[in-house]
Amino acid sequence: MSASPQAAEASVTLYARIKDELRALIRDGTYKPLDQLPSESDMTARFGVSRITVRQALGDLQNEGVIFKVQGKGSFVARPKTDQDLSRLQGFAEAMSDSGHVAKNRVLSFRKLAADAYVAGKLRLEEGTEVCQILRLRFVDSEPISVDISYVSAELGDRLKKADLATRDIFLIFEHDYGIKLGNAELSIEATTVADDVAGHLRLDAGAPILRIERTTFTAAGQPLDFEYLFYRGDAFRYHLNIARQPARQ
Amino acid sequence: MSASPQAAEASVTLYARIKDELRALIRDGTYKPLDQLPSESDMTARFGVSRITVRQALGDLQNEGVIFKVQGKGSFVARPKTDQDLSRLQGFAEAMSDSGHVAKNRVLSFRKLAADAYVAGKLRLEEGTEVCQILRLRFVDSEPISVDISYVSAELGDRLKKADLATRDIFLIFEHDYGIKLGNAELSIEATTVADDVAGHLRLDAGAPILRIERTTFTAAGQPLDFEYLFYRGDAFRYHLNIARQPARQ
Repeated sequence: MSASPQAAEASVTLYARIKDELRALIRDGTYKPLDQLPSESDMTARFGVSRITVRQALGDLQNEGVIFKVQGKGSFVARPKTDQDLSRLQGFAEAMSDSGHVAKNRVLSFRKLAADAYVAGKLRLEEGTEVCQILRLRFVDSEPISVDISYVSAELGDRLKKADLATRDIFLIFEHDYGIKLGNAELSIEATTVADDVAGHLRLDAGAPILRIERTTFTAAGQPLDFEYLFYRGDAFRYHLNIARQPARQ
Repeated sequence: MSASPQAAEASVTLYARIKDELRALIRDGTYKPLDQLPSESDMTARFGVSRITVRQALGDLQNEGVIFKVQGKGSFVARPKTDQDLSRLQGFAEAMSDSGHVAKNRVLSFRKLAADAYVAGKLRLEEGTEVCQILRLRFVDSEPISVDISYVSAELGDRLKKADLATRDIFLIFEHDYGIKLGNAELSIEATTVADDVAGHLRLDAGAPILRIERTTFTAAGQPLDFEYLFYRGDAFRYHLNIARQPARQ
């Protein structure tokens, strides 16, 4: 992209050096998680380089997940993220306790309503059938991390009404209290911006990025049991998984 | 949340009706993908309801992925997303061709550089070892959908230099041209905002949400082969997968 290979080489070295220095300042705790970094002009002056070089270094660190930018505010140090293994179908509290965290839930609402076409289709019901909608705000180590909107049949909803949804996963209640065998779940995962209601619960600014999941959980017999929208804070959560390679065609 | 159950019931019905009407207008093509919806005040007037009710309906449609909001601009109809099965370790072109799409790549840069501590760790090399970095912009049906930053050993890089990276997946080149058996990959998946350089390539506004993936691919013998940062447009791409339930502990 540059006219002279030598100039390009020098600029690569310069911005690599600034990246390294910023990384070191974050590692040694000079800048802590969620701290704001100095402004671009401060860094330009401090490092004695052009603004383009500073921007390149910051852009790289952003791509690497080390820092994040907030429009009109500046660059901040990313905080460590809660990790969940996506290759296992687990309740959230179950997964969090496996990794040494404490998960709690707050039930925001619990009500019956007529299933719209999409939810009804997922649960293989007629549109308009009465279903139970459960809104939960989920906390990890006392920080709000996700909003879960779950739809189950009205009958299951009546049973869940008496359950301890503040500390227990719905999956475990199904399995251990109701003797329902879970089979599998179908998920979709995408990145989007948070809607205002969810932003309020998760204490996010308008326009903040979130992971949006749709999940349908089936019984071992293949009957849909539970359809959910899950919204995870982009700045606080990530999935990880391990995939094996199957033979490919040429 | 409301003082009177009857008032709450009426408002649920009202906003459910507006959701249904908007969904119908999107389904019948009155509002097409990426079209802007009327403003909140237009809808308030058109439906004869309060702004709170309109906002609730729009918030729900946003949570359901039917529409998206752009800060300071308004609400827009979401476009259909390209889907990739996350339970299979596949090259992107391979996966796209499986679902009837045409994938192409543009190599943005191909260079050698000293691996930083993070990249070196992922490839199990000493920090500062020379590696090859390949930046590719990936298109589905002529639309830019992702930026991939791949790191391989300098030696593999020299071989890839001669390969057709515009139409072929690196995975397939490894397997079919070099006879390297792929084993598995480790991934992390999170939602974040796009960095400026990636935004430019993907034609996204500043602050747009993206899926950020880190992927390390291993040979069948367990040797790391390829470490990548993948950035997918949040508005154009989603993953899906199917997970089986393993027996849980109480």
